[in-house]
Amino acid sequence: MSDTTSTSPLSTVSRRGALALGLGAGAATFAAPAIVRAQEAKTWRMVMAWPKGTPGVGVNGERLAAMITEMSGGRLNVEVYGAGEMVPPFEVFDAVSGGTAELGHGTPYYWQGKNPVFHYFTGVPFGLTAQEHQGWLRFGGGQALWDEAYAPFGVLPFYAGSSGPQAGGWFRKPIESLDDMQGLKMRIAGLGGEVMRRIGVNTVLMPPGEIFPAMQSGTVDAAEWVGPWNDRAFGLYRVAKYYYMPAFHELGPALELVVNKAAFEGLSPDLQAIVRAAALASSAEAFADFTYHNVVSLDPLLAEEGVELRKMPADVIGALAAASGEVLAEIAAKNDVATRVHESFLAYRAQADRYAQVADMEALSMRAMALKG
Amino acid sequence: MSDTTSTSPLSTVSRRGALALGLGAGAATFAAPAIVRAQEAKTWRMVMAWPKGTPGVGVNGERLAAMITEMSGGRLNVEVYGAGEMVPPFEVFDAVSGGTAELGHGTPYYWQGKNPVFHYFTGVPFGLTAQEHQGWLRFGGGQALWDEAYAPFGVLPFYAGSSGPQAGGWFRKPIESLDDMQGLKMRIAGLGGEVMRRIGVNTVLMPPGEIFPAMQSGTVDAAEWVGPWNDRAFGLYRVAKYYYMPAFHELGPALELVVNKAAFEGLSPDLQAIVRAAALASSAEAFADFTYHNVVSLDPLLAEEGVELRKMPADVIGALAAASGEVLAEIAAKNDVATRVHESFLAYRAQADRYAQVADMEALSMRAMALKG
Repeated sequence: MSDTTSTSPLSTVSRRGALALGLGAGAATFAAPAIVRAQEAKTWRMVMAWPKGTPGVGVNGERLAAMITEMSGGRLNVEVYGAGEMVPPFEVFDAVSGGTAELGHGTPYYWQGKNPVFHYFTGVPFGLTAQEHQGWLRFGGGQALWDEAYAPFGVLPFYAGSSGPQAGGWFRKPIESLDDMQGLKMRIAGLGGEVMRRIGVNTVLMPPGEIFPAMQSGTVDAAEWVGPWNDRAFGLYRVAKYYYMPAFHELGPALELVVNKAAFEGLSPDLQAIVRAAALASSAEAFADFTYHNVVSLDPLLAEEGVELRKMPADVIGALAAASGEVLAEIAAKNDVATRVHESFLAYRAQADRYAQVADMEALSMRAMALKG
Repeated sequence: MSDTTSTSPLSTVSRRGALALGLGAGAATFAAPAIVRAQEAKTWRMVMAWPKGTPGVGVNGERLAAMITEMSGGRLNVEVYGAGEMVPPFEVFDAVSGGTAELGHGTPYYWQGKNPVFHYFTGVPFGLTAQEHQGWLRFGGGQALWDEAYAPFGVLPFYAGSSGPQAGGWFRKPIESLDDMQGLKMRIAGLGGEVMRRIGVNTVLMPPGEIFPAMQSGTVDAAEWVGPWNDRAFGLYRVAKYYYMPAFHELGPALELVVNKAAFEGLSPDLQAIVRAAALASSAEAFADFTYHNVVSLDPLLAEEGVELRKMPADVIGALAAASGEVLAEIAAKNDVATRVHESFLAYRAQADRYAQVADMEALSMRAMALKG
């Protein structure tokens, strides 16, 4: 998940509202409108790690907030603040922890300075797909570990969807072997950046607004962003023609809703259930949103002049795999909860990998064969 | 999605309730409990196409019902009836259409006798993955077409998740080529069965309770069920050792929540939002449930004595692909909405297939390479 904090809002919120379902004139004769007593109505603030209107991340945070407001009949009215409107993007977690805001929409690795184990709840290099990750959290013990990791901060985490597999990024020159990665200047964030550094890449971090000019001038040689949908809007194909897919470090990075624990416990059980279900509903909606828009954006992106789709050579993958193993082992050794998260995640990943090879990969391979005729 | 109407309940409902989140003793000092007035409380009936407690399908229908009850604070209390408790499984849609029940949990192809286009909302041979399908419905115009197809029956459809890719089934003898399929007696339902028939298979339908003895005695040579999780419980590996994955006809078959339209329009806007979000939330939970349990069930299933995992040979796939194209073209010609659904679905599938090959397939391939070391 790339930070998109300086991206301009590119779309407006659009969702399937009550009116779209044809609420008829006769409705009022069947049901009394929800009665909201003044003393029951609350307003909660949701701070986001992205600007309002950002396709994928921001828009789905806003939809999540709207679901809570609508489902509660206004008893829990959620006001949304985009990145920087109340707090800077990387202070969302602290704002929720301290009670400045009751809700936050972000991704766990943004707060990895609290505890590096947070990376596992966004996703790690060669990690889990979105559906595998949500399966581990909900049914494989992952949620209890996540709750435990966030507990010292008085924050409750809820999974809120994924982009699906992200793209590996834009390169000014083709990568033919591991040698071509040596000294390459690349803008890449998070654990992916740490792993790249270990295989010889000169990784750099810069605000999103500086990436395009840096790529254009050749100050950096490569930069990763999100996937075809967001990448097309961002426009790096204008200054770098080699597009590498997918990202080795982001197979299904997670979005999260974080909730101030004391505030959550102050809600009635029905409002607690609404917050919980809104996050779960948003997880499906966000994943569908990214999937649909990436699907329909790939062909137009590849039709842009000179864009060449590539995948990383095997020796680069091998080096990235070895370095990823080292980085994860170091995180696992940091503290007790990190050790247990690491062990649970890796045991499950091994099984998920075997299943995906014979189920998901074969299903897609079979379909590709069928459609080729 | 196989019908599981005679399967015994194999698990009980387990969900992350409010108590698990540590609702503290101080909660009552922060929020008044939800006030339910007698005249506002409604009880709705949900009929399911599967028995209560059926892993995957039944349990997720029950969780969906519980979410509505909890989120509404009891203002909309949903009572669940398993298959046969109020109506037989294949009469769920009619019960909701006629108002005998307000809600139904099933899968669209069960009612394809109303309009064969319903198949596209469950999924078709060589169709869409779960996330691609939900993307098409929510963002690609699929939902409006689904609403239109169900409108004559006074029923509103909501997507409620997927099993992910299903397994191709259990065979008593290995399939080496298309010749081995000629005259083979196979239990397979739905469009997959129709396609199999056209390539020379002698397809048969029988209630789930009759499948095991028929396979044991050799009355049938092959049978498909669901996937490793449900297949392990069903036990066909005891009488047929060749396990084919995945199913060509079920890449991501959909579950649905159907709602009586007049009843829905009689709800206040907050309760409408709750029903809508509960289905969306359930879609994520059901997909995660199947994914997790299939992942952890594969190794134990393959460790059962004599089980051999296989995939269909290329000539069988080619024949299935050709026959699938014919079957879909025939459905498309049936009526106007079927034509438009077919065109929308196939145009999107072509794009989804290209994207999946370079994103999802490559991501899984890259991970497999990395984990092999």
